[in-house]
Amino acid sequence: MTASELISFARGAPSLDIIDVAGLKAAADAALTQDPGGALGYGTAIGYPPLRKLLAEWHGVAEDQVLVTNGSMQADAFLFDELVVAGQPVVVERPTYDRTLLGLRDRDADVRPVSLDVDGIDVEELAGLLEGGLRPTFAHIIPNFQNPAGYTLSLAKRKRLLELAGQYDFVIFEDDPYVKIRFAGEPLPTMLELDEGRGRVVYASSFSKTVAPGVRVGYIVGSAELVGRVRVRATNTYISPNMLAQAIVHRFTADGGVDRSVAVVNAALAERVKTLCDALSRHLPQARFTAPEGGYFMWVDLGEGVDVAKLLPAAEALGVTFVKGTDFLLEGGESTLRLAYSGVRVDQIEEGVSRLAAALRSLQG
Amino acid sequence: MTASELISFARGAPSLDIIDVAGLKAAADAALTQDPGGALGYGTAIGYPPLRKLLAEWHGVAEDQVLVTNGSMQADAFLFDELVVAGQPVVVERPTYDRTLLGLRDRDADVRPVSLDVDGIDVEELAGLLEGGLRPTFAHIIPNFQNPAGYTLSLAKRKRLLELAGQYDFVIFEDDPYVKIRFAGEPLPTMLELDEGRGRVVYASSFSKTVAPGVRVGYIVGSAELVGRVRVRATNTYISPNMLAQAIVHRFTADGGVDRSVAVVNAALAERVKTLCDALSRHLPQARFTAPEGGYFMWVDLGEGVDVAKLLPAAEALGVTFVKGTDFLLEGGESTLRLAYSGVRVDQIEEGVSRLAAALRSLQG
Repeated sequence: MTASELISFARGAPSLDIIDVAGLKAAADAALTQDPGGALGYGTAIGYPPLRKLLAEWHGVAEDQVLVTNGSMQADAFLFDELVVAGQPVVVERPTYDRTLLGLRDRDADVRPVSLDVDGIDVEELAGLLEGGLRPTFAHIIPNFQNPAGYTLSLAKRKRLLELAGQYDFVIFEDDPYVKIRFAGEPLPTMLELDEGRGRVVYASSFSKTVAPGVRVGYIVGSAELVGRVRVRATNTYISPNMLAQAIVHRFTADGGVDRSVAVVNAALAERVKTLCDALSRHLPQARFTAPEGGYFMWVDLGEGVDVAKLLPAAEALGVTFVKGTDFLLEGGESTLRLAYSGVRVDQIEEGVSRLAAALRSLQG
Repeated sequence: MTASELISFARGAPSLDIIDVAGLKAAADAALTQDPGGALGYGTAIGYPPLRKLLAEWHGVAEDQVLVTNGSMQADAFLFDELVVAGQPVVVERPTYDRTLLGLRDRDADVRPVSLDVDGIDVEELAGLLEGGLRPTFAHIIPNFQNPAGYTLSLAKRKRLLELAGQYDFVIFEDDPYVKIRFAGEPLPTMLELDEGRGRVVYASSFSKTVAPGVRVGYIVGSAELVGRVRVRATNTYISPNMLAQAIVHRFTADGGVDRSVAVVNAALAERVKTLCDALSRHLPQARFTAPEGGYFMWVDLGEGVDVAKLLPAAEALGVTFVKGTDFLLEGGESTLRLAYSGVRVDQIEEGVSRLAAALRSLQG
């Protein structure tokens, strides 16, 4: 590591060392050997059928409740196109993924942020808003290792959210790309599962974190009716998503590649989180944070008086970068930042935090 | 071939025997060996950079004038989103690709069909409409081996179209997926080339016909300004298109795979067209058609009094299918049909046409 090398805590992407390149090569060869017609022909908008079948089995739903897309951002875009009504309220977590905010605002949704706690969205704050007359078309929830906060929605809150969705007739958009990236604590049931087929939940996930981002394979699970509407939209947009990449991902997954990848990824991320928390405690003792049990991100509050908008350029001048907390909020959060530990090596983390501390001192000096 | 096997002249897709499966396997291995980070990481909305560079060289433009997408239908969708103004006129060929009509009508364009002749769109009919006050936002043109007609726009008409575009200030959307699938006659310059950088043309093409449809790789070439706007739209839709598939297509292409594929595809299609024309002359002497010099499709007119809407179910009952001409028109064309010869083997063509003739006789009997 040279002093001039930029250490990036900014991008939520895995480093190449935790991607199973050899496994993907073997999967590409096998997919093209076993099903060249399926991998190379036009498919339909549902995606590569064997992959859809596998996902239906994972989630215990019928195949017509699943649609595989070109990455889960594309799935989100289709769902937003389908569900958002201009001017109508949509509940989001505060903070939430910046691209979610952008996608909703681009479609003129009335975005209603609700506080996010360490155990997930503040369901009683939401209940109060609903009692006060708020009627959202849907609530967008990232239940596991939330982006940007790294927090996870508790089981009790999952159940309460479903109760509210039933009572006030709104959809829960369960956006769950990180679910398998758990390296501590116990897995929780998805709201999709807890809903037991009542159709209150539309679920989206992705292979970006369990295989690789470049394969651009995501998917949705929902009622057959909603999935059918998205299918029409997908057909009219691109005929079919990437059959070659989906056939490769299917072969990789069916041959146990996802399980093997997840083991490697989770071991690496657990070590990175530990290193990050230790380094923060040592170099930035005023920083407040909660060590995530999974995912790519940790939310850090540097406390009152720290202006992260000023810290960022100072940090970049010293060779370290991150994303400002304000990017994930409609207002507030000036002293917060998001640190992604998915793309940094352990040996970069200590140095990166040390540079961050030096940047903070330079502002206060 | 059994009597019960459906012979499909319906779908514009290549048969698996003219796809270079072995070449794609080698390209997948090479891409993942030589550039695993590029093939498997998040990219950006411009596409896989080496592929964009290669396409810029093909077309003699700057790299920022090219954007690689998830198939050219997705490129069309982005361009339509960018260019169509609801209620404003858009010129199309009559007949034209049914998905083009759907995409334009979904966006509330005022669709204005202009007659298509064997040498392309009737430019003097268009000139008359323009003189009469028509001010289209753009004209959608499929210059080579048009879908559905199989006709090719002459050089003189290409030049006249550009002249009209300059005079009346509209964009030409040159939709050109079949350009390399020429098996007779001489290649013509694209309107993109003839425009010499004046920005009157936005060009779209695809690797579906030269590599395989399942790779879902298409692209646009246009002014840096328009491409920049599409880039923002693409970023907000899916972050990046399929990096893995684009890296494979790049490796395949850079290693000469497209040239080899095109030679195989064109030899096969030339034989299929000859067989089709011979069979039609023998079994359906009343059929009027022009043998295409390339592409996947041939337009057939069975003459006055034949109702193709009735012929189709009769043909399907006898084990042969096609697409009705009326699917490609806003009105008229009741006696026409589109025959795709890209997906049928030579031995199926004779039998398919014989079944078609039998179906027609059954209606007239």
